Parts: sequence; structure tokens; C-alpha cells
Amino acid sequence: MKAAVVHSFTAPLTVEDRPVPEPGPHQVLVRIEASGLCHTDIHAAHGDWPVKPAPPFVPGHEGVGIVEAAGSEVRHVRVGRRVAIPWLADACGRCDHCVSGWETLCLQQHNSGYSVDGAYAEYALAHGDYVVPVPDGVDPMDAAPLSCAGVTTYKAVKLSGARPGTRVLVSGIGGLGHLALQYARIFGAETVAVDITDDKLALAGELGADHVIDARTQDVAAEVQRLGGADAAVSLAVSNASFRAAYDALRRGGTLVLVALPAEGVLELPVFDTVLNGTKVVGSIVGTRQDLAEVFRLHQLGRTRVIRESRQLDEVNRCFEEVLAGKVTARLVFDLR
Amino acid sequence: MKAAVVHSFTAPLTVEDRPVPEPGPHQVLVRIEASGLCHTDIHAAHGDWPVKPAPPFVPGHEGVGIVEAAGSEVRHVRVGRRVAIPWLADACGRCDHCVSGWETLCLQQHNSGYSVDGAYAEYALAHGDYVVPVPDGVDPMDAAPLSCAGVTTYKAVKLSGARPGTRVLVSGIGGLGHLALQYARIFGAETVAVDITDDKLALAGELGADHVIDARTQDVAAEVQRLGGADAAVSLAVSNASFRAAYDALRRGGTLVLVALPAEGVLELPVFDTVLNGTKVVGSIVGTRQDLAEVFRLHQLGRTRVIRESRQLDEVNRCFEEVLAGKVTARLVFDLR
Amino acid sequence: MKAAVVHSFTAPLTVEDRPVPEPGPHQVLVRIEASGLCHTDIHAAHGDWPVKPAPPFVPGHEGVGIVEAAGSEVRHVRVGRRVAIPWLADACGRCDHCVSGWETLCLQQHNSGYSVDGAYAEYALAHGDYVVPVPDGVDPMDAAPLSCAGVTTYKAVKLSGARPGTRVLVSGIGGLGHLALQYARIFGAETVAVDITDDKLALAGELGADHVIDARTQDVAAEVQRLGGADAAVSLAVSNASFRAAYDALRRGGTLVLVALPAEGVLELPVFDTVLNGTKVVGSIVGTRQDLAEVFRLHQLGRTRVIRESRQLDEVNRCFEEVLAGKVTARLVFDLR
Amino acid sequence: MKAAVVHSFTAPLTVEDRPVPEPGPHQVLVRIEASGLCHTDIHAAHGDWPVKPAPPFVPGHEGVGIVEAAGSEVRHVRVGRRVAIPWLADACGRCDHCVSGWETLCLQQHNSGYSVDGAYAEYALAHGDYVVPVPDGVDPMDAAPLSCAGVTTYKAVKLSGARPGTRVLVSGIGGLGHLALQYARIFGAETVAVDITDDKLALAGELGADHVIDARTQDVAAEVQRLGGADAAVSLAVSNASFRAAYDALRRGGTLVLVALPAEGVLELPVFDTVLNGTKVVGSIVGTRQDLAEVFRLHQLGRTRVIRESRQLDEVNRCFEEVLAGKVTARLVFDLR
Repeated sequence: MKAAVVHSFTAPLTVEDRPVPEPGPHQVLVRIEASGLCHTDIHAAHGDWPVKPAPPFVPGHEGVGIVEAAGSEVRHVRVGRRVAIPWLADACGRCDHCVSGWETLCLQQHNSGYSVDGAYAEYALAHGDYVVPVPDGVDPMDAAPLSCAGVTTYKAVKLSGARPGTRVLVSGIGGLGHLALQYARIFGAETVAVDITDDKLALAGELGADHVIDARTQDVAAEVQRLGGADAAVSLAVSNASFRAAYDALRRGGTLVLVALPAEGVLELPVFDTVLNGTKVVGSIVGTRQDLAEVFRLHQLGRTRVIRESRQLDEVNRCFEEVLAGKVTARLVFDLR
Repeated sequence: MKAAVVHSFTAPLTVEDRPVPEPGPHQVLVRIEASGLCHTDIHAAHGDWPVKPAPPFVPGHEGVGIVEAAGSEVRHVRVGRRVAIPWLADACGRCDHCVSGWETLCLQQHNSGYSVDGAYAEYALAHGDYVVPVPDGVDPMDAAPLSCAGVTTYKAVKLSGARPGTRVLVSGIGGLGHLALQYARIFGAETVAVDITDDKLALAGELGADHVIDARTQDVAAEVQRLGGADAAVSLAVSNASFRAAYDALRRGGTLVLVALPAEGVLELPVFDTVLNGTKVVGSIVGTRQDLAEVFRLHQLGRTRVIRESRQLDEVNRCFEEVLAGKVTARLVFDLR
Repeated sequence: MKAAVVHSFTAPLTVEDRPVPEPGPHQVLVRIEASGLCHTDIHAAHGDWPVKPAPPFVPGHEGVGIVEAAGSEVRHVRVGRRVAIPWLADACGRCDHCVSGWETLCLQQHNSGYSVDGAYAEYALAHGDYVVPVPDGVDPMDAAPLSCAGVTTYKAVKLSGARPGTRVLVSGIGGLGHLALQYARIFGAETVAVDITDDKLALAGELGADHVIDARTQDVAAEVQRLGGADAAVSLAVSNASFRAAYDALRRGGTLVLVALPAEGVLELPVFDTVLNGTKVVGSIVGTRQDLAEVFRLHQLGRTRVIRESRQLDEVNRCFEEVLAGKVTARLVFDLR
Repeated sequence: MKAAVVHSFTAPLTVEDRPVPEPGPHQVLVRIEASGLCHTDIHAAHGDWPVKPAPPFVPGHEGVGIVEAAGSEVRHVRVGRRVAIPWLADACGRCDHCVSGWETLCLQQHNSGYSVDGAYAEYALAHGDYVVPVPDGVDPMDAAPLSCAGVTTYKAVKLSGARPGTRVLVSGIGGLGHLALQYARIFGAETVAVDITDDKLALAGELGADHVIDARTQDVAAEVQRLGGADAAVSLAVSNASFRAAYDALRRGGTLVLVALPAEGVLELPVFDTVLNGTKVVGSIVGTRQDLAEVFRLHQLGRTRVIRESRQLDEVNRCFEEVLAGKVTARLVFDLR
């Protein structure tokens, strides 16, 4: 099978031929149809983060495909089913986080395309209990970005407290943000979209943003405060200026949700204002299997629209460059069919 | 009547004779029995904060006394009733914060001893709807510190998510902390007390702390992580080192509650860790009338113990020095009976 | 001014001329533009409920109009503003329900068109703090039904736990139900609409119901269980059969919300099933001023559509008959402009 | 090994010798030290409930003992560990209930001493992921009743919304109720205990009830309403009169938690009052592994006291009679050491 492999943090990936792996007793073998490119894959390939993956490894945690074989202990998914392989490759299933509906905080979790081989390949292994079924009628090319960009922003919006009667700011309408914006609206909030490029501001309007702010020419915090302030802000642009603008746009009692994972990055939180205004800052990391099932269901019901472009796996290094250059409107997805 | 008055941010208070004020239609006149000294009074008298009070003014927002007269529009309290005058002198009663149970976030609120004259006096005026009845059997000298130190820590513990099955860290077992510790236990949490003086560590033990950590000789975060980490931390010591130790003591999904109001003060929040660990940081400001009623009820039921020392109002300037020198174990309360 | 007056529980209303009333110090005088007819008005006029209003009185608690005069103590609304007069005429503002965001449970509340004169008239008095501003761009003929049918179903849906990832059943797609259905969707739920007439089933489809069930020919509980069961059911049809079908349609952990107010009416709750399935049954009564503000805001943002028919106040008795005969598709609104 | 076996719903149990079973790959073999007698065991042995167990079977779901052997797939518990075998023998681990922290609602669960053999024996098999470790210092004779009576009432109190500032009624201070009362207090509530025997009323006082009501001579609802009403009621006595008294004792917005499992039993819920008062009725079924871990931790911290009496397994039939005759103060526990 064809796979894109990281051999070194300082060299490009090589697209090479590897034997199709055999599933262990708890695993399924998935024939990949679509595999999304997430910025995290670039961080993985470059070894940007404190805890690094061990080359050689195959990146990719937005894998969607068909179960071709299943180990003897697999109970909850059958051969022939379309499934997603998300960031949470598996978790222990028994710690208090896992038992309480917070498996994404399990300290013994493995992560696809990071601590175990991922979905930048024609076939991938996955834990039979941790793949998530993709419902009928959902295009695998849509399902791929939903498996990480989707579920991550969905969870962030959930934690933001978005609901009817709230106003939610989403800053950065790209691969994550265009979904965050839709989820904020689906949760019932009045939405404010912020970006700095014309096409993304136009996209925000098309996706139903109630207010669109151009941060190049407008003072974001002042504009949002003029509306009454934001009950929540989901900050997807990875800059201190963007975090701070989102924080300053909050009304009293508001919530700033942090989602992006800059290797470095410190939010300078003013203690006096945070106390006086009763502000909350919340970190949100991906989502559970149940969150992803909800994301897929919403898409099946026609509530979301995925903006993505198709690529071939052989183009992986060029695609990384595209993303790093900020040239990509939304999500790149490798079509492996 | 005798009153302690701030005439200048750079001069000591003067204790002087003033006419007993007349209540307006919505006000009550309260004959003060006990008036607590909160660090905020010192910030007020010194003009430490961005928005400053306007001298001359009378500080004090932990006033307890008997209603002696009531204006024509007062409906909810009668002459003869013992009441508390807390920090929230009044709020608009109509904004969405007020209507939703979050009057402490009202943008039109007044604050006792800050934007209106407070309780460092033999008599004080207060809004008839915003005083809080003190139930029978509660000593006014206890009720005074409960009116701010009590309700502030009670609310902080409420917002921390403390409940049975959680472990809560309280750092700083002084005027606020000795109450925070008791509330954390009352909410059902396993408690960890941190301090740096022998008497406060001993006090923590007496008040039922499940674990006591001496930050002079022990690594707070490491000790708490050895126990499994804290689900919540209420940080009452006003130092970045203390905030950071509390943050580092959290387990995944944990909550850091900020309560203290340093004039300056920035918490440097590491974005990567906050996201990966699903951490929350929450600012908490005093509490509502309902929170204070709950605080009083708990005391009436015998669930709390207030550590305080009695002083005379004439000693007010010496008391400020005592507090600033860190010589006071718990709360100073002016006895005006 | 013209007003429709109940003089006896057993006689028709009389439409008569009355002097325009003078506002007291806390009151506003509202020139009514639109006044909705709610089934509760019929219960009031007939004295159906245990606690009865005292004739003569003017019914009506879906009043919308312009403030023409305001008493000396009115602070939060100005002459010229369009406001709504909802069921909650006023509340005490000081009990723990009021202070905690649950004013609708205040034991000292008054109710418009029941314990105080209501909006079936060209002018009505209302408490200046309890009228709710109608935002610009909202048609008063829409605002009227939103003031009770809207806010009541909005609150019920809020309490149901509806959110993305849930499936919510609404049974009875009439004056209340057509709004409940829209709110369930606005809160993000997958929606199931149940009714027994062709036009209402068609309306449900137009309003975006994900599933439509005809209770004449289909087994509601079985159909919903085939979808996976309902996380919540809002039962608006006032029959034991309808309650029971909604209860049986729930999945484990589900919530049945009761909204309608039959004079008699007992829900026979099977204890064994309720315990084993972890079921919740929740009573929901109208909504707060904040809930109504949210309802109006959603309408202003274009998220809801009100189905109503215009009538003249002189037709009030004929309108009561129409409603009792079940001939009305949605809401009747008296146009008083 | 010795085991108490149900061969027929109409005959007494036989205590007989059986081979010690072999654990399958996911199972552990537990040498039972203590095994509590729960009323559910009697329902099981008598086939009282709609879905019946299949004789012959061994009852018992409050088993505590030492892991003696573990199958090849067991990951989370080691030989030598003391563990509890609760009602939830296992669940699927993959449905949305399981993934969301509600494994007790899993439709594919097995139940100890019901659908699989239980702990009325010297040895029992259990699923390695579903046993719950008993912490050091917890007496196995205490741990046994905590495994069902404890966790069931703990969960019920959790769902009741008990917290500081609330008043919680517990009716029936027996095997379940004496723990419910303690948990209500541990969650911070003001507690009201109701019973009809002198010794249980005395016990309630010893366990710290704030108010004790003798239902033989006092009108429960009236007495509680005089205190201001109950925010929540946990009704453990299985009678309609008791349910109704608990319901009538609620204040507006209050919650009635149903816990007991009468084979028949219908709660006649008055719809009008439930809606007008915003009342909630909630069914609560046992608790999760995490709930039980919290229960054990509270006991280890010295916060609870278990009232129980020791019996021998040979006395099982006499014990059933004792319980049915209402002669038992608290919990019977078979000592198998």
C-alpha cells in the first residue's frame, strides 16, 4: 500500500510502498477513502511540540474509510462499515475521565498519526472501539475534515455555552473557523465572524453569520461591545493579538475558549478584569466519540457544509507548503479512492 | 455619629463626628453593630484601583446592624431587623445580569464604602432591597466577615465545581482562606490547604483540611499531583508564584478560580497546556444576595466557624497597618455596640 | 377606551367603554396595538382553575403596544417605547426565586389578565420593570403571540435539554407547538413533530421538522423508538393519551416537559420504568423577562416565524368559540391599531 | 465453594457446594469477604419484576473481596486487590450512554446476581473492567452495603441538586435512607429526616439531620413547608402515600427523586401543580463506577458511617424473612471471611 511517512523532523515526507498491516485482536483494518490534512500533522512531522512522535511514522487523524478486516475481540463495528479514525486513537476506558464522558482527557490515550500510525495511507489500523461510524449519506470527503476540524470546533462551541440568547464571536474563518461559525449558529447563538481576508469574510456571510467584522479596518472589541459584547469567543487565530481582541470583546460573565495549539504561546490574563467581570477562559481539546457521532449526525441532517479541496497523497509535501503559506481557504483532503 | 472618613488617598482616615443621615424613599438607616475590615477598604482608602472612589467617603462593606428607619418605598425589610450591608450596595434590578441571577455583574451597581458611603460608622444608609437579613442566632461579629470574606469565598467555591468526589486546593488560609477551606468541605470536596505560617497550617488542620501543605518546605504542585491532582484550586494569595503553583496542581479538566483583586497582576496562561489539559480559569467576584443568605444559613446551622478579632473604630489606621504588615491571623471586626 | 370585560364566569364578555386608566408611580400606560388570545384567557373568563380571578376584569397577557405615560418611579423604560405585557405582571423582586433568575416561581407575583387587568383593551397599565421591550423591526402582531406562546415554549424547550445531538419530540403543532418545534430546532435538536391534522403536519414540514408523525395512523412511541427514541418530549396536547405517548417515546435518560395547564389532569407515572430508565418529568411555566427578551431577539434575527390570524376585539366571544371548537390553525391576535 | 442458589421463584434458596469458577479472558475471580443483602435480591429470588432472572442463579450485587485470578485481557486490576462487585456487572462500553458517563443506562448491561451469577458465594466471577477497587482502610463489611445502598443513594442525592443553600428531605431512614441522609449533608444541604419508628428517628439525629419528623404524629408536608419547603426530596419508602407526602413537601422549583423499585407502583402526578410550581420528578438508578469510587473515597476520608449487621450465608432464608418483616434496622451483610 501507498503511505506518506515521516522519517525525520527536518526532511520532507516520503510517499512509499508498505505492506498492508494485519489487525490485532482489538483492531480493525480500514481501507482509507479520504484523509484530511490538519495543521497538527505539520506540527507532528516537524516535531514542534514538547512531546514528540517517534519517526518513522505515518501522520493523519482525519481518516475515513471502509472496515476491511476486524480482530477477534472487535464487537462494536463490522466489516463493510464506513468509519472515521480521529485523533483519539484509543483511551484506557477505565480511568475517571473515561468513565465520566471525558475520554479526551485520558492520560493513557494514544493519538492517530502521532503516537500510532495514522491515515496518510491507503490502509490504516485502528482500535475497533474507537473508530466512529460514518452514517449513510455522508460523503467521506466531508467526513474527513469533520473528524477533527469538525469535532474540535463542535466541542469548543459546546463548552463555550453557546445557546439561543447568547452572542458568540468566532475569529478566523478558515478550516476550523468556518465550521465553528456554523456550530455556533446551530447551537442557537447570534454569531459574529471576524477575519482579515475578503473571501473568508464573504464565506462567513454565506454561512449565515449575523455580523461580519473585518479586523483589518475595524476594532473588533469595540465593534462587538457596541452590539452588547460577546457571551463567548472561540479564538482560532493563533496570535496573542487575536486572543486579546477576543477577550476584550467579551461581556461580563463571558467565556473565552482556547482551541488552537501553538507550540509556544502565553495568554496574558489580566487578573483584576477577569475577577471583576467574572470572565472564564476554557481550554478545549478535540472531542469524544459521542461528540463526533453528533457532528456526523448534524451533517447527515443537512445542517453543516464543509468547505474543502481535494488533493492526491503524492502531493503531501506541496500541500504542507500551501497550508504554511496561508494559501488554503479551508481544508485539504487527500482523496484515496 | 462617629465615622471613619477618607479625605485623601495619601492621608490617614479621620474618625470624626457626622450627623446621622436620613434615609431616602428606597433606603434604610442601619445602626451598625459590627463592621469588618477587608483588604478592599485599604485599596479604596489608598485609591489603588483604576476606577477610584471620590473623597471624602466612608469605607466599609461588611456592615451589620439593626434597621432603625425605613423610607416610604421599602417593602422587604422592617425596622428592628438585623441586616448586613455587603459590597453590592445596589444594582439596577432590570438588566439581563440582574434578571438572570447575576446581579454582581450589573454594570450600574453601586458599591458600599466605595461609590457610596459604607459601614465604618455608627450609622449607615443602605438600599432596602439590597441589605440581607441576618438570621436569628448569628452573632453580628461573625456576620460582618461573612458579608464579604464569607460570601466571596462561598461563591468562588461554588464556581469551582467543588462537590463530593472532587479534590479542592485552597492556598492562603487567612481571612478569606479559612472560610474558603470550610466551604470547600461543606460542598463535599476533599480539601488541601496550603500556607506558609505555622499557625495557619495548624488552623487548617483544626478546620478539617484533609491535607495540609507547607509551601515553605514542600513543592505544592508536586504534592497535590501525588494525591491525584486538584479538580479545582481557589487561589487567595496574591502572587504570580501562588497562581502558578495552583495552576500546576490541577488535574486534567481542572478549574482555577481567581478571587483576589491585585491592582496590577497578570496571570501568564500557557495556551498549549491549557488546551491539552482542558483547564478552566474563572474569575469570581463577591456573591449575590441569595449567596449571602445561604452563607448566613450555613452559619446558623452551625456549619462554619469565623476566626476574627475585635477592634474599636478609633483604631482604624493602626488596623490598616496591622493588615498591611501581614500580622493579622484572620479578620478584624470593628465592634460598634 | 374600548375593553373586553369579564363580568361573570358564566356569561360572555362585554366589549364596553372604560376610562383610560392613570399609571401609579411604578406603572406605565401602554396603548395596545396587538393583543393575543391564549387558551388561558378562556380558562380565566370561565373561572376554570382552582384560584380564580375576581370579576369584573379584563383578560389578556399577550399585549403589545407603545408606552404613553410613565409613573415617577419608572426607571427602565421610556415613553414612546414598544413593549410587551406578558403573563408575569410583576413579582416581588426580592425572594430567592426572583434573585436567582426564577421570577416566574415568585409566590407574590401578579398575572396580567388574571389578578390584574390585562390587554384586551385599547390601553393597559403595566409595571414599568416587568414590561419587556420589543426590538425594532419586530411586528407587534408577531410580538403578541411571542409574549406567551413564544416564551412558554421557548422556556420548555430550554428546560428539555434540547441541544445538538439530541432528538426532541413536539406533539401538537398549534399555537404553542408550531413555536416549540422551531425552538427545538433553534436549540440544535433533531426534531420530531406529531399531530393529527393534515394542515398542521404540512406546516411542521414547512417549519423544518426532521420527522413528521401522523398520530391518526402511526404509533408515535414505536416510530420514535425506531429512530432511537427521544431525548426530550414537549407535550402540548392536553390528554393523558398524548402524555403517555410522549413518555413512551423517550429514550433512557430522557425528559418529558409538561407545559399545558389542564384544570384537572393527572399523569400516571410508572415508578419502575421511570427509575430503571432514569427518566425525568419537568413542569415548565411561562418564562422570565430575560427569556422573553431572547425570544424577541431570535425573531428580530429572522429565526422564527409566527403563524397567526388577525381579529377585531369586538369579535372576542366568537373567537373564544373558534378556539374551543379547535378550528384555529395557530394564534388569534386582536389588532387594536 | 459454598453458594446460595435460587432454583425456583417459589422455593427458598439452597446453600450448596459448587466448583470454584474459572475466569474468562475479561474476567476476574474474586474471593468474597463480604456480601450485602439488598431488597432487590429478594425481588430477584421471587421473580417479582417484569424481566426475570433465569434459575438456577446466585443472587448478590454488594460483593466485596480479593481478586484471586485474572483473565488474559484484564488490564485495570491486579491479583491481590480488594474490589467490589456492584449491580452493574458490565455494560457495552461503546453506546452513547456508556461514552457519555451514563453507563447505568446502557441497554446491553448485565446485572450481578440477576442476569449473571452474583456474590452470595465464597467466590464470584466479575468483569475486570467493571469491578471497583476498594481503597485501603475501608472495611469490606462497610464496603459491601456501600456498593449498592451507598452508590444508589449517593447518585440519587447527586441528581436531586442537593448543595449548600438547599433543603433536602429524606424519607425512610433504613438501609438506604441512613446513607441518603448522610450524603445529603455531605453535599452541603440542610437535611430533613422522616421516619415512623423511634430508633430510626434517633439514628437520624445521631447522623446529623437538621430536622427530624415523625410521620406517625406529624404532617410531613406541612412541617416541611413551615421550614420553607424542600428543594429536593429523596423518597425511599415504597408507598404512594410517602411519594405524595414528599411531593407535597417540595417548594417551587423542587425535585422529587424516585429510587425504590416497586414491581407495580404508579405515581399520580398532578399536572396543573407540577407545571405551575415548576416541579421536577427524576428517576435514579444505582450509580456508575465513578460514583462508586467517590462513595468509597468519602468513606475512606471518614465522612460516612455504615449501619449494618453481620450474618452467615447459611442464614440467607431467615435473613430474607427478617427483611420482609421490616425487623432490620439497617443493612445485613454476609460475612464470608
